[in-house]
Amino acid sequence: MKSLALLALIAAAPAATPPSAADIVRDAPAAAWVAVPPEDLLVVDSAKGRIVIQLAPGFAPAHVAAVRKLARDGDFEGGAVVRVQDNYVVQFAAKQGRTAPPAPSPAGKAQLPAEYEQPASGAFTPLPYPDAYADQAGYVAGWPVGRSAGSQWLVHCYAMVGAGRDEPPSTGDGRELYAVSGHGPRHLDRNIALVGRVVEGLANWTSLPRGTEALGFYKSAAERTPLTRARIAADVADAPRFEVMDTASPTFRAYIEARANRRESFFLRPAGAVDLCNAPVPVRRKP
Amino acid sequence: MKSLALLALIAAAPAATPPSAADIVRDAPAAAWVAVPPEDLLVVDSAKGRIVIQLAPGFAPAHVAAVRKLARDGDFEGGAVVRVQDNYVVQFAAKQGRTAPPAPSPAGKAQLPAEYEQPASGAFTPLPYPDAYADQAGYVAGWPVGRSAGSQWLVHCYAMVGAGRDEPPSTGDGRELYAVSGHGPRHLDRNIALVGRVVEGLANWTSLPRGTEALGFYKSAAERTPLTRARIAADVADAPRFEVMDTASPTFRAYIEARANRRESFFLRPAGAVDLCNAPVPVRRKP
Repeated sequence: MKSLALLALIAAAPAATPPSAADIVRDAPAAAWVAVPPEDLLVVDSAKGRIVIQLAPGFAPAHVAAVRKLARDGDFEGGAVVRVQDNYVVQFAAKQGRTAPPAPSPAGKAQLPAEYEQPASGAFTPLPYPDAYADQAGYVAGWPVGRSAGSQWLVHCYAMVGAGRDEPPSTGDGRELYAVSGHGPRHLDRNIALVGRVVEGLANWTSLPRGTEALGFYKSAAERTPLTRARIAADVADAPRFEVMDTASPTFRAYIEARANRRESFFLRPAGAVDLCNAPVPVRRKP
Repeated sequence: MKSLALLALIAAAPAATPPSAADIVRDAPAAAWVAVPPEDLLVVDSAKGRIVIQLAPGFAPAHVAAVRKLARDGDFEGGAVVRVQDNYVVQFAAKQGRTAPPAPSPAGKAQLPAEYEQPASGAFTPLPYPDAYADQAGYVAGWPVGRSAGSQWLVHCYAMVGAGRDEPPSTGDGRELYAVSGHGPRHLDRNIALVGRVVEGLANWTSLPRGTEALGFYKSAAERTPLTRARIAADVADAPRFEVMDTASPTFRAYIEARANRRESFFLRPAGAVDLCNAPVPVRRKP
């Protein structure tokens, strides 16, 4: 039982500043983190540094399987970063991949199932703010999703990775992958298979010169950044390991609240809301 | 009066494909474009190319006046691009400008009025879709704005330019300007004075290496990109001239509708909506 003197001290103490989103991530308990299976990490080395991609087999199993096979068959070696379009995407291709804009229909063909959306399922943490593109924005299993009419889909936020395709009925085959490098191009949602997100190293490629051809493709082979190697982390003894915040955890809910209500001393007027792509799921190197 | 035969032909003709957003911009009548006053164009030359900024005196008159004076006094010469933070901003500074993160209060001081929002005014074209940050998103006088409770403000979309500041009560003095280079950081809305937008050349700077210090500042002077010159277009005989689409025009409304409902053959499922930063106001070189 507290003494009256202690209670008086507590009452007189200034209100503690609630933690910022950075504080919450830094202090998150071990239980709030989920290890990324090494089978879901694609490590891509290039002449301009490494990027690491977390694959999303729960949303695009056939595309992810195709990407894993390409990596294990060595098909990305000899490939290159072929496209850098400002405020849009950075795209890389396997050695047999496309180095020019999508072909018009009917050249395209369906190579894989159209894994563009799926029935709503999984533990859903809603983002309690309006979204222009979905009836409800939120998170499932560590990923940003939109939900409408019983369906859910991964959304095009910064660093999300999709499988480039030709015009319909093409669905892409994993030989061209792009990472979002600008304002979230949400109009692509439900039109392309998103297969994962870059969890490390994206700035190595977003700082590349922009391509000067249509859609930011490079004009010549000399402009492209060669890929030297691409491996699945499960096959590599010293590959980096990552953890993603559990989006069903109370810690993640506190993080969302703090992203919506910035308490850092720089801010005069917290927004009181946040959009899906401005509340990215925290990812870290496994400590 | 049309003949029955002609009517039959009309009925049998396939429905014309409605124009895409690109078609609408390309075919926009001269009346749908508004010339940018040369007094509102800041032309910045650097060791890595030129960027052109359209200033917004209607929203931040004191900050814009300060930027014009700095340019005319030659204060940007000898300055540099001092900060490139991935998925956030590219920042440049006059020769007396800050090259490190904002100072904590109370070092900051109010240099200029806090031009962060203003009473709602002007011809408003609403964007008919939900926005997480404002009661109503839309456009006024060629600019993207948020509106809530009788107030309006410029919003942080890609390429928008703001006046960096220290912590409150600092309001910035125009010596540090940043351009948004990632997903629209809308949490900065109403917390900083936005002074304009880059209308040409931003990719020259977004492709610069990211800074490795806190907030993406460069560590050494050698990493910074020097500014060689900054001028107001009104003072330069051969300066480029620009036009902005009239956001109160029927053409602009058609453009918004087409951005929300992509009809290009690549798309299987038009979103039926668009967010403010994915419907940027068209700007072009004066033909």
